[in-house]
Amino acid sequence: MKVHIVTVGDEILIGQIVDTNSAWMAQQLNAIGAKVTGITTVEDTSESITAGLHQALEGVDAVLMTGGLGPTKDDITKKTIADFFGVGMYFDESSYNRLQRLFEKFGITPNDSHRDQCFMPTNANLLTNKMGTAPGMWFNHDEKVIVSMPGVPYEMKYLMEYEVLPKLQAKFPMMPIQHRTIMTVGAGESMIAERIAAVEEGLPKHIKLAFLPNLGQVRLRLTGRSSDEASLREELDHWVKEIEALIPELIYGYDEYKLQAAVGELLKERGLSVSTAESCTGGYLAHLITSISGSSAYFNGSIVAYANEVKTKQLGVSTQTLEEYGAVSEQTVQEMVQGLLSLLGTDIGIAISGIAGPTGGTPDKPVGTIWLAVGNQDSIHTKKLQLTKDREKNIQYTAVVGLNMIRRFVIKSYQAAESI
Amino acid sequence: MKVHIVTVGDEILIGQIVDTNSAWMAQQLNAIGAKVTGITTVEDTSESITAGLHQALEGVDAVLMTGGLGPTKDDITKKTIADFFGVGMYFDESSYNRLQRLFEKFGITPNDSHRDQCFMPTNANLLTNKMGTAPGMWFNHDEKVIVSMPGVPYEMKYLMEYEVLPKLQAKFPMMPIQHRTIMTVGAGESMIAERIAAVEEGLPKHIKLAFLPNLGQVRLRLTGRSSDEASLREELDHWVKEIEALIPELIYGYDEYKLQAAVGELLKERGLSVSTAESCTGGYLAHLITSISGSSAYFNGSIVAYANEVKTKQLGVSTQTLEEYGAVSEQTVQEMVQGLLSLLGTDIGIAISGIAGPTGGTPDKPVGTIWLAVGNQDSIHTKKLQLTKDREKNIQYTAVVGLNMIRRFVIKSYQAAESI
Repeated sequence: MKVHIVTVGDEILIGQIVDTNSAWMAQQLNAIGAKVTGITTVEDTSESITAGLHQALEGVDAVLMTGGLGPTKDDITKKTIADFFGVGMYFDESSYNRLQRLFEKFGITPNDSHRDQCFMPTNANLLTNKMGTAPGMWFNHDEKVIVSMPGVPYEMKYLMEYEVLPKLQAKFPMMPIQHRTIMTVGAGESMIAERIAAVEEGLPKHIKLAFLPNLGQVRLRLTGRSSDEASLREELDHWVKEIEALIPELIYGYDEYKLQAAVGELLKERGLSVSTAESCTGGYLAHLITSISGSSAYFNGSIVAYANEVKTKQLGVSTQTLEEYGAVSEQTVQEMVQGLLSLLGTDIGIAISGIAGPTGGTPDKPVGTIWLAVGNQDSIHTKKLQLTKDREKNIQYTAVVGLNMIRRFVIKSYQAAESI
Repeated sequence: MKVHIVTVGDEILIGQIVDTNSAWMAQQLNAIGAKVTGITTVEDTSESITAGLHQALEGVDAVLMTGGLGPTKDDITKKTIADFFGVGMYFDESSYNRLQRLFEKFGITPNDSHRDQCFMPTNANLLTNKMGTAPGMWFNHDEKVIVSMPGVPYEMKYLMEYEVLPKLQAKFPMMPIQHRTIMTVGAGESMIAERIAAVEEGLPKHIKLAFLPNLGQVRLRLTGRSSDEASLREELDHWVKEIEALIPELIYGYDEYKLQAAVGELLKERGLSVSTAESCTGGYLAHLITSISGSSAYFNGSIVAYANEVKTKQLGVSTQTLEEYGAVSEQTVQEMVQGLLSLLGTDIGIAISGIAGPTGGTPDKPVGTIWLAVGNQDSIHTKKLQLTKDREKNIQYTAVVGLNMIRRFVIKSYQAAESI
């Protein structure tokens, strides 16, 4: 199946936002064996949308559109689509009822622009959008399909996952494609490439390996195409094992599993609790840990100690240590862990202090100098990072390193339940 | 001048990378008064490039292509362009000499693939690429222009800045374009649309208004086109003021300014400090606040009180309150603020407790029930939210509401320095 993605939106054409929707959609379509042959962004005018639609339909089975659906006046996509098909619009009672029910919860009465939103092209099959008010629309056009979705990322993602992808798979037969993704942390792309070079050279032609690096993590994606699904599955399993054997300590999970989920599972499985003491990451590590549902089973809390006063008064870091070694030092993060453990009483504690940037560095401690410490009542491990001047990147990278330090510390210091 | 951007690259079509080049180019083109009417990504095949080029040329003055130029075999763009124009290729001695000189510095001898890179369509005007080995190419085609550049971002950016943009400005007279973006928080898209309907209806044809919503915030973008730059500026200023007059309390800034930066400025300006006590947001609000460089001037720290024990022991919430009203209640967040203020000693404190989901709800308190409190030693304001079952969205939306509560509280409770 071939797909063309059309994005409606002036904000992309003036460069105000980057079109991340299309990349995400392309990934998902690829994963089900569909091929994206083109991505087009068109202006928010009916001429551009119509022209884009005509061009996009050439040589593909489906056109997926995003954007241009919503309550305000700049949204003309629906009318344009109706004109494209030469059909009229109707007022969809069920959409309006859903909207009313939704708004009742908030004590709001729908206004005219909400009412206008419930007019639909008469040939649209509506796709329920549980994340927002504008439904998706599915149109059958000769043997082809045209789908229109809102451009708000989480609404589009919901519709793709629960409506569009399953319906496309049902309608078009695909050349079976299978993926395995190995999630790694703790080494860079080229280091991993070197260590698994033997596997990479041995891969058969119908199996491809891609390195997908992102801030301290590298995903290794094996993609296989074959009409024999069962033996392709076996083959992929084989190659995953070969890779595992070469880089066992770097692998924390599979198939887009999140590092914070893997760390959570590890803690839960061994009955351990954790807390964080954060200076330069400002709560971002705690946020990652608590982004996992059920994290209250192993996460107690965090002290974000941005001011030195919080480091001394709450975490009991001695003023002498701060004066002698500075807030960004091995000694300080060690004392932060000790203080954290006695304050919040968790099994494990992790502390971070550094200069996130882009300003605040000194010759001794340039921007990007960051100290981490992880430990329990028995031992504390520390690590120093020397990162970039990019504040956001530094914070995110440091949090990943912190998660991996917790993971390695648990594995080394605590036996798995089954092996006790 | 109208421009269509064409990106050549399979890596975008499988979603492996996001097309940030086009957004950057669109911004630059927009700034010189050119209008980008479309962005297309095509496959790395000569059929797709040819078809893309034909479609892109329709109705525009210039087509700017990126990608498909470089030393590896999958780069067929140049040959395709030569075929498109019906011309041959020639070996460009000067490109080869430049390459040789460049490689000599590194002690490398150019290989065959480097040599191949120096064949050019005979009608190409070469644009020197000081950032890499593949030059840009400028083609005059009837009254139109086609430009081809490498896809490596810093090479493309160099060529755009020093070659393409100046040449386009020399060739085409531009209609100046200007933008104003108004950043709002605290009301939804349709609510704002209703309140500023009079302005929207009164806008002249050459000024457009777009609503760009995202999780509790809505950006309002005015775009004007006119050959008279000075009066367009005045006109836009006028319409911004008209909008301001209708929704004064919703506006926190302009032109992509971040809410957390606006809140920080407000606190700094009035010499106030803030701290957070977070349960369900798990440190995300602290992260947003500290994502701003210089936030240590007004942010002391945070207590992420995930476990009830942290709420009672650190923040001094009474066990009676927790038993009687529950952790997700107005009483609890009020006591969290009180405890936070005495613990961290900041002027203002904000507390959040809720059920982020997707599980953990009760009939009384369904998933998405969230309480917030903001206050100082004198008064505490509370707010209840009833959100969705989407954990990530709930956390992000709540943090935005929290930031806005701080903003509103500061404005209401403290006079601006200049008005004291």
